[in-house]
Amino acid sequence: MSQSTPPSWHDVAARRQKEIFDAIPSAWLVDKDLLRGHNFMDLPQRCPNIMSKEELFITEQRAVDILAHIRTRTWTSYQVTLAFCKRAALAHQATNCLALIMFDSALERAKELDEYMEKYNRPVGPLHGLPISVKEHIYLKDTPATSGLISWADAPSPGDALICKVFREAGAVFHVKTTNPQTLMALETHSNLFGRTTNPHNTNLTSGGSSGGESALVAMRGSPLGIGTDIGGSIRGPSGFCGGWGLKCSVARIPHSGLSGLHAGMENIIGCVGPMANSLADLRLFCKVALDAQPWDFEPSLIDLPWRNDSPENLPKKLRIGVLWHDGEVTPHPPIQRALRDTVHKLRTAGHEVVACHPSLHASLLKWINTAYFLDGAEEYTSTLTQDSDPAVPMIQWLIDSTAPTRHTVEQTWELNSLRDRLRTAFSLQWREAGIDALLCPVNASVASAHDESKYWGYTAVFNATDLPGVVFPVTKVLPTDTWDRDTPNIKSDKDAMYRKFWDDGGAEKYKDAPVNLQLVGKRLREERLLAVAEVIEEIVRGVNDDEKSKIAKCTEKTEMVQSRL
Amino acid sequence: MSQSTPPSWHDVAARRQKEIFDAIPSAWLVDKDLLRGHNFMDLPQRCPNIMSKEELFITEQRAVDILAHIRTRTWTSYQVTLAFCKRAALAHQATNCLALIMFDSALERAKELDEYMEKYNRPVGPLHGLPISVKEHIYLKDTPATSGLISWADAPSPGDALICKVFREAGAVFHVKTTNPQTLMALETHSNLFGRTTNPHNTNLTSGGSSGGESALVAMRGSPLGIGTDIGGSIRGPSGFCGGWGLKCSVARIPHSGLSGLHAGMENIIGCVGPMANSLADLRLFCKVALDAQPWDFEPSLIDLPWRNDSPENLPKKLRIGVLWHDGEVTPHPPIQRALRDTVHKLRTAGHEVVACHPSLHASLLKWINTAYFLDGAEEYTSTLTQDSDPAVPMIQWLIDSTAPTRHTVEQTWELNSLRDRLRTAFSLQWREAGIDALLCPVNASVASAHDESKYWGYTAVFNATDLPGVVFPVTKVLPTDTWDRDTPNIKSDKDAMYRKFWDDGGAEKYKDAPVNLQLVGKRLREERLLAVAEVIEEIVRGVNDDEKSKIAKCTEKTEMVQSRL
Repeated sequence: MSQSTPPSWHDVAARRQKEIFDAIPSAWLVDKDLLRGHNFMDLPQRCPNIMSKEELFITEQRAVDILAHIRTRTWTSYQVTLAFCKRAALAHQATNCLALIMFDSALERAKELDEYMEKYNRPVGPLHGLPISVKEHIYLKDTPATSGLISWADAPSPGDALICKVFREAGAVFHVKTTNPQTLMALETHSNLFGRTTNPHNTNLTSGGSSGGESALVAMRGSPLGIGTDIGGSIRGPSGFCGGWGLKCSVARIPHSGLSGLHAGMENIIGCVGPMANSLADLRLFCKVALDAQPWDFEPSLIDLPWRNDSPENLPKKLRIGVLWHDGEVTPHPPIQRALRDTVHKLRTAGHEVVACHPSLHASLLKWINTAYFLDGAEEYTSTLTQDSDPAVPMIQWLIDSTAPTRHTVEQTWELNSLRDRLRTAFSLQWREAGIDALLCPVNASVASAHDESKYWGYTAVFNATDLPGVVFPVTKVLPTDTWDRDTPNIKSDKDAMYRKFWDDGGAEKYKDAPVNLQLVGKRLREERLLAVAEVIEEIVRGVNDDEKSKIAKCTEKTEMVQSRL
Repeated sequence: MSQSTPPSWHDVAARRQKEIFDAIPSAWLVDKDLLRGHNFMDLPQRCPNIMSKEELFITEQRAVDILAHIRTRTWTSYQVTLAFCKRAALAHQATNCLALIMFDSALERAKELDEYMEKYNRPVGPLHGLPISVKEHIYLKDTPATSGLISWADAPSPGDALICKVFREAGAVFHVKTTNPQTLMALETHSNLFGRTTNPHNTNLTSGGSSGGESALVAMRGSPLGIGTDIGGSIRGPSGFCGGWGLKCSVARIPHSGLSGLHAGMENIIGCVGPMANSLADLRLFCKVALDAQPWDFEPSLIDLPWRNDSPENLPKKLRIGVLWHDGEVTPHPPIQRALRDTVHKLRTAGHEVVACHPSLHASLLKWINTAYFLDGAEEYTSTLTQDSDPAVPMIQWLIDSTAPTRHTVEQTWELNSLRDRLRTAFSLQWREAGIDALLCPVNASVASAHDESKYWGYTAVFNATDLPGVVFPVTKVLPTDTWDRDTPNIKSDKDAMYRKFWDDGGAEKYKDAPVNLQLVGKRLREERLLAVAEVIEEIVRGVNDDEKSKIAKCTEKTEMVQSRL
């Protein structure tokens, strides 16, 4: 018997990264010259030898519109899938966002779906032929699910996660899996296994995390719809950093079974599967298809609650929106201050009421959730991430060091559950008293952070702690003129000082081209209503005029007609 | 400074029991002769000096009908409350079912409500003037909540539990609190603090537990509607033992905040607040009023899901009912075998389909839940129940000894959560495959047990483990002719042998006059549908003919008209 030395983590990582890269057809490889610079949002346009004008056009449409075109047979699924595969390949070369490439099987599946459509003249389901990207730790048949861990580098998915099963049966075409950070517990996407994913708007910045492969890919239109997960901001953070739309629902609304990850079975705080896309309509599509499948029979912890129709027409004409100018912990950076101010101004001009909400419970909620993340004293983390096997990347090492987690007894976890419920109740009563339809707030204290600077996610985690749905949406971009507001609050905390320094060390130039998103938060399990309010706000923010409105209405009407014909 | 010896637990218990008894007006005390014998169901009829014929009549009506009479002002709330107070006093003398008497404040409140009605000609809410009884560990303003513990003998409620707050605002009149056992973890109601509660049908038997004060009281019509709790069968067991109706919903459906008890904050298995009554209509009333108040704002862990109208008309004409003849662990006693057999026969005769369901997952589910009850190794129990302070009563001592609980680490509790979810999923898929509308099964292996013989609650606990709603309803009574079925399964377990012996040591005579209930189980969060199926089954079991049906329909219509007028 011969004994061979097991490969080092460097070898494992190099092999996996090479496998990903090698799956890109050589015709889709970009000349190195094109990969200079910091902003790759127009890379696809700069590669006419790879992407045709029609392919550019296809990949820039909303998922709902793509589906309508496939159903009316103006486009084939093959044509659509090919276009997205190409663009995903470009996105990966620009940002290192892919964890697995499945172009061959995706194109094969697209062909089958086209044949089905040809033969039966109807789609297999509501997602017929649509490419969908999947965050890497979500189980997908015949793919590994590593959670960014070297030790799980080839760990196979035991089957489809329920969301993937539902979408597969609805006709989805899975073309790529996207990177997530080591252990998933970071707002950046960096692991020894996959390396670092960057932001396509500015590769000096992070695409966010933990769904940071998705956010980069979706921003570059390498996927019309992605499946992410969020237990502290992991959908909303990266969507916000990359200028996309992302929705975290309340726990137990969207199928959630079938994820790899440490701390399996931990329930004191629970994450959510959710959509990442480039439009509100596509977030709705995701939720509606997921719930129309009545997934609760297959995952009994889900709430047996169908997706309810709730559109802007059901809302009061005059909305009452709460605004959180800051969370009392870390001051939002200048471009975010401006985005909030401008949005509030526009809302008021449009006749809505905006009231300031005070973050009196945020510190307690954040303290609670930061404890809840590591009830085992981070033992599973530290035993998995040894210097030899898979050394902790900087953000994970910082997290463990800075939170100094302690091991809890069961009784202590019960006390924490009770504390959480008391805090949630107090927050709910504050909301009730404020009488607001939704709460407008930052996604993060920063726009997309520089690498290894994502050290605060209180603006998203607080809504995991309270289990309220949150949607993020693009508002503006960083401007060279962005500077601190004159009435910037005087918060005295180490974190605040650190974040102020992050901005001051470089200012607007450091964050050049970064998108600025905001977050809108709704009542628990009222995702439909939240999206209805978001729709109203989006129109106001974008300054959609009546002409445009009627154009959008016509387009949506057409899409809906096509959908209802099914 | 003088130091006095703290009172012994005997002193504390004697004082509390005397306080309860002393609150009964002397005119309502029963001659000792009347308290001989074993069956006290007709005690009120045997006390014409205490209860008038009209009072007997009032107390024998359904809560929905009483409410209709108060609204149409044929009865006052004072009149109704007085009648129930008298009957509750009789029930206590027969069965020791009360933990607190609030006759004075109840009559006072009833008077206020009558004055309101007089003045405004409308009720304050949907429960205007209805007496409601409350299980003792549920917080109720200005009352103690002891969980049957000596150490909490005078522990005040910090306010109203949410369910009490909702019902109070809806116009309920709280007239009594009812006994529960030491620690609540028993299917009998026995504590050092309150003594033992007995079954009014046969005081040699238990009224069940832990809501065993409620079940005895409601059976004797000392309350038209009671609030119980259930984490293993604590509503369904006692309701079944006393011939009443009881409903355990899925977790997070009915307001649940504001209970005293050990293991606060434990979430691996969660109990439910629910109704105990003498009719199906009253269970519905309870749920509808609870959810119409939109309680989720006040208890954010509740599911924002209104009570849905689902009546027998919405059901398929031919139902498909699963039947669980036994759970593979403990054989149901002869009267229960007969009740199941007769009910299945009647269902088939009425044109419904009945299919046998096999308990392949029950053993694993019960093993899981028995572990989940004591994740702290029962340390809080054993440290609370010391020989000096409050020695464990036999059922609690047996529980701790027989389950030999071990202390779990947080990681071990996470593993248990994952196991639970796997088991629930498997059970859900079995249900889906069976394609049944509901599952008919025993409430317990025994009808009301003899004291200290309630050592198995698998038939109810399995539906806490799976989080499925279950309703229990009266079917028949023990008959002298009841003997084991010829095809009684051959189960080889110590528990089965023990339970067979319980029956064989005395047979039908031992369980004389005991009611026989069955349990009907539905899909998670589909309580409305479960009650609709139960309504169909009840009519078949009772052999309601078309004449009677139209009479019931008319009566219900009248009640509903009155209700809709509000």
